Amino acid sequence: MLNKVAVPMNRRSLFKLIGAVAGSAVMYQAMTELGHAGESGYTGPVELKGDPKGATVLILGAGMAGMSAALELRNAGYKVQVLEYNDRPGGRNWSLHGGDTYTELGGFTQHVQFSEGLYLNPGPWRMPYHHRALLDYCKRLKVALEPFTQVNYAAYMHSSKAFAGKPQRYREVQADFNGHVAELLAKATNQSHLDRTVSREDREVLLDAMRAWGALDKNYEYKKGFLTSERRGWVSDPGGGTTSQPTPSDPVALHDLMQSMLWRAIAAGHVYEFQSTIFQPVGGMGMIGKAFGRELGDLIRYNAKVTDIKQDERGVTVAYRDAKAGGPVKTAQAQYCICTIPASILSQIPMTVGAPMKSAIDALYYDSAVKVGLQFKRRFWEQDESIYGGISFTDMPNALIGYPNTRFFDDGPGVLLGAYTFGANSFQYAAMSPEERIKKTVEYGTQIHPQYPAEFQHGVAVAWHRVPWTLGCAGHWTEELRARHFDNLCAFDGRIVLAGEHASRLPAWQEGALLSSLDAVRRLHQRVMAG
Amino acid sequence: MLNKVAVPMNRRSLFKLIGAVAGSAVMYQAMTELGHAGESGYTGPVELKGDPKGATVLILGAGMAGMSAALELRNAGYKVQVLEYNDRPGGRNWSLHGGDTYTELGGFTQHVQFSEGLYLNPGPWRMPYHHRALLDYCKRLKVALEPFTQVNYAAYMHSSKAFAGKPQRYREVQADFNGHVAELLAKATNQSHLDRTVSREDREVLLDAMRAWGALDKNYEYKKGFLTSERRGWVSDPGGGTTSQPTPSDPVALHDLMQSMLWRAIAAGHVYEFQSTIFQPVGGMGMIGKAFGRELGDLIRYNAKVTDIKQDERGVTVAYRDAKAGGPVKTAQAQYCICTIPASILSQIPMTVGAPMKSAIDALYYDSAVKVGLQFKRRFWEQDESIYGGISFTDMPNALIGYPNTRFFDDGPGVLLGAYTFGANSFQYAAMSPEERIKKTVEYGTQIHPQYPAEFQHGVAVAWHRVPWTLGCAGHWTEELRARHFDNLCAFDGRIVLAGEHASRLPAWQEGALLSSLDAVRRLHQRVMAG
Repeated sequence: MLNKVAVPMNRRSLFKLIGAVAGSAVMYQAMTELGHAGESGYTGPVELKGDPKGATVLILGAGMAGMSAALELRNAGYKVQVLEYNDRPGGRNWSLHGGDTYTELGGFTQHVQFSEGLYLNPGPWRMPYHHRALLDYCKRLKVALEPFTQVNYAAYMHSSKAFAGKPQRYREVQADFNGHVAELLAKATNQSHLDRTVSREDREVLLDAMRAWGALDKNYEYKKGFLTSERRGWVSDPGGGTTSQPTPSDPVALHDLMQSMLWRAIAAGHVYEFQSTIFQPVGGMGMIGKAFGRELGDLIRYNAKVTDIKQDERGVTVAYRDAKAGGPVKTAQAQYCICTIPASILSQIPMTVGAPMKSAIDALYYDSAVKVGLQFKRRFWEQDESIYGGISFTDMPNALIGYPNTRFFDDGPGVLLGAYTFGANSFQYAAMSPEERIKKTVEYGTQIHPQYPAEFQHGVAVAWHRVPWTLGCAGHWTEELRARHFDNLCAFDGRIVLAGEHASRLPAWQEGALLSSLDAVRRLHQRVMAG
Repeated sequence: MLNKVAVPMNRRSLFKLIGAVAGSAVMYQAMTELGHAGESGYTGPVELKGDPKGATVLILGAGMAGMSAALELRNAGYKVQVLEYNDRPGGRNWSLHGGDTYTELGGFTQHVQFSEGLYLNPGPWRMPYHHRALLDYCKRLKVALEPFTQVNYAAYMHSSKAFAGKPQRYREVQADFNGHVAELLAKATNQSHLDRTVSREDREVLLDAMRAWGALDKNYEYKKGFLTSERRGWVSDPGGGTTSQPTPSDPVALHDLMQSMLWRAIAAGHVYEFQSTIFQPVGGMGMIGKAFGRELGDLIRYNAKVTDIKQDERGVTVAYRDAKAGGPVKTAQAQYCICTIPASILSQIPMTVGAPMKSAIDALYYDSAVKVGLQFKRRFWEQDESIYGGISFTDMPNALIGYPNTRFFDDGPGVLLGAYTFGANSFQYAAMSPEERIKKTVEYGTQIHPQYPAEFQHGVAVAWHRVPWTLGCAGHWTEELRARHFDNLCAFDGRIVLAGEHASRLPAWQEGALLSSLDAVRRLHQRVMAG
């Protein structure tokens, strides 16, 4: 996404800068800002006018990209076949439920024990309001959605190095951050330091704004009292009748707040993809993949491991084997091929394409990410701490705790996202056995929620670099890589075109996969119509 | 809530100050900050140990306060009777559905025509995560809850005097506000103007914080580009495949932003009561009142208009008539009385209480508020503008537009809150006929959503000063009033004790009504146990 858009600093150096002063939470945030970004250009279902006269298309991969391509081409009159490695539709659109089994690279098999209706989304878990293609497919496929909470003012911001390791509420950190920023800026303004920048006319308005926004008193100070407690919360709560006097809380001093680094996670909810309103499918993200799968029926051949992709002037021939049983090599043929296999896998499959596409496929590195789901006997985060959904951030290797945004007020059990970690921490996680990952995640979380040891039941851990069919969570485009390879990755090579999140400027987002697929489908149709 | 808590400035003068520079939205916000505030002190169901030996309690009013008192006292073994003016339970906990009829003071009757399942909450519509008594009663009474969205980054902030009347998205206003504030503070810091306030050690961290939080570039400037568009949104959207280049958007200049006054509404979601997570009952706020009513059954006598409240050493005698049929005066007697009738009404009912309680009742003024619900053929705010729930703010008399936080993605029809207005605007609204209120609300809304005229079907308007059984929306405590009267209002007068939101430090909130009621119930029980 970065080429041709003015970028304030080199991506890599910005990463380094942020990494130097901050931890995994802000690193993740920065990655998101730089790589996983943007609003959807989707304006409605793709229109493919004209009769393709029985043209055939072979689609590799039954994820979001592959299945949306299959759906649109089938509806337009194409003969479509989809080959999928897994025994289920969805790809990274995936929820693990009780009874599911998952075997990762290295041989570890996990038998998921979650109670009825509980799940972990190892891959995507959020659907921004502006990812319109994804939302529209949900409507068309009758997938019920419910709100996802990103910012929860009762959730925690935790640093093992600040406040003696005691987690702070989001509302406290944000209120104190805004308050100190407002007080400092009001001071500079009042002392006429900004007279060259801020006009006389704007000066008074700016001061009013600082007071209202920062909860400052009449002297433009951020001080303990009613106004500040009405942002950061109270020590003891106002109530009813004769025993209702509240006790205001103490703001944290500027120095302590700054050095705690907890301010890093405040802006997470300001970032385009994490702005409210966000949605999730009722019953887990995997409901979308399942709905696509139902719609496509036997157009999808499951357990098909592609081993070779050949093309000539007349068509494309793909060799595959049964991913579970092995057995003889089979072939599938079509006039065109839309290949949505992740580049990390595709680079290992022989393929008759030219150097530009091949180089692009080989150049793309895949990010690491780890998610750990933990089941607890009861929803103590709600019952004990008034945390209903949303995310707590920490500087520990688990990076965050995501609370379930559904079944609020249930007695339990409940499953939360105990870890969602990128970068170095995720490599350390991936090097452990699933059992060890879960154990560590419980240890980390206990520093935030001391209820963990008493309430923990069991968990499941997915390290994306060990997922056999992706070997990573998503394509990682640097600015340089994009400039050199992106156009070649997306361009038709003979009768083959690629699609998926890696072929988009919304990497790691389902919307990117869908939009790249719709773009590929449109171009394919133009070629067919042009004869 | 203000006495005994350090208050940065006199409540009335703060109101005046804010009113002078701002409009209704910030006025409302300020009122909320000053009057409708605080976390619940509720820690679980009230425990009333010991046998009351058939003690009798007469409860006046079947709102949240009256019904929670009735429930707890009945469960503890008391003989309880509730008298209620309306023909339904709930009081201000109230939802208007299609088929309902409502007659206001002045004689106007509205026949609500909303489609199946759609509703307006004329009274409360939000339940903060920290209103624990209310949430706990919902759990006990099996009232299903769903999230309420306060802050929606796609919703509008509108001023008829700025940007040629063109509404701005919340994300644009907040991003530009944060960006300019960060740039200004970074400038003051870099120019060493704050060296006496900010230590050398904190200085670098503060600069990093401004850059990360404000989306500044490496020169600490807030400029058009990737980083800023990833907060405020894009002109054209990044996408997938070959046609995926985005176009960044132009930030608004500091001067235009400041003078637009749109920054006023940014902090609304930072205020304790409006912080995520917030809930609403599935099917309308009135579901709580209905659930209480079902639970209490024939303990509640409906259509009972209280005309006289007498007490002596042995008990309390209340005279009432049928509110609809009139007819002869009846009486109800009990050893104790919990009176939850709003002070606005109670001040007109003869009552044998001493001067302290009587003065308190007479002194309390009731706020004005108006809500207008509008039904439209389709949910164009979702379909055309990607606004899923949340609130748009405007400087027009309707003050805000609240989008439904349920049934997302339905084809329609849909009901939105077209106006929710306090103060001067609400008096003007109340002076109109309901029909005229609705007409005006459609006119105002058309300036934000041009789809209004083509899609509008019908509406309903509730002006709280014309609601016969409250004559206002909630008790309005000034700091002076509270100091003089609050304790007297809450203290037992003989065998009578008052409860309701007006007898709490959470005025206008259902939590305040519940906590005042539980406090009254506890004190009543202590008296009974003490013999």
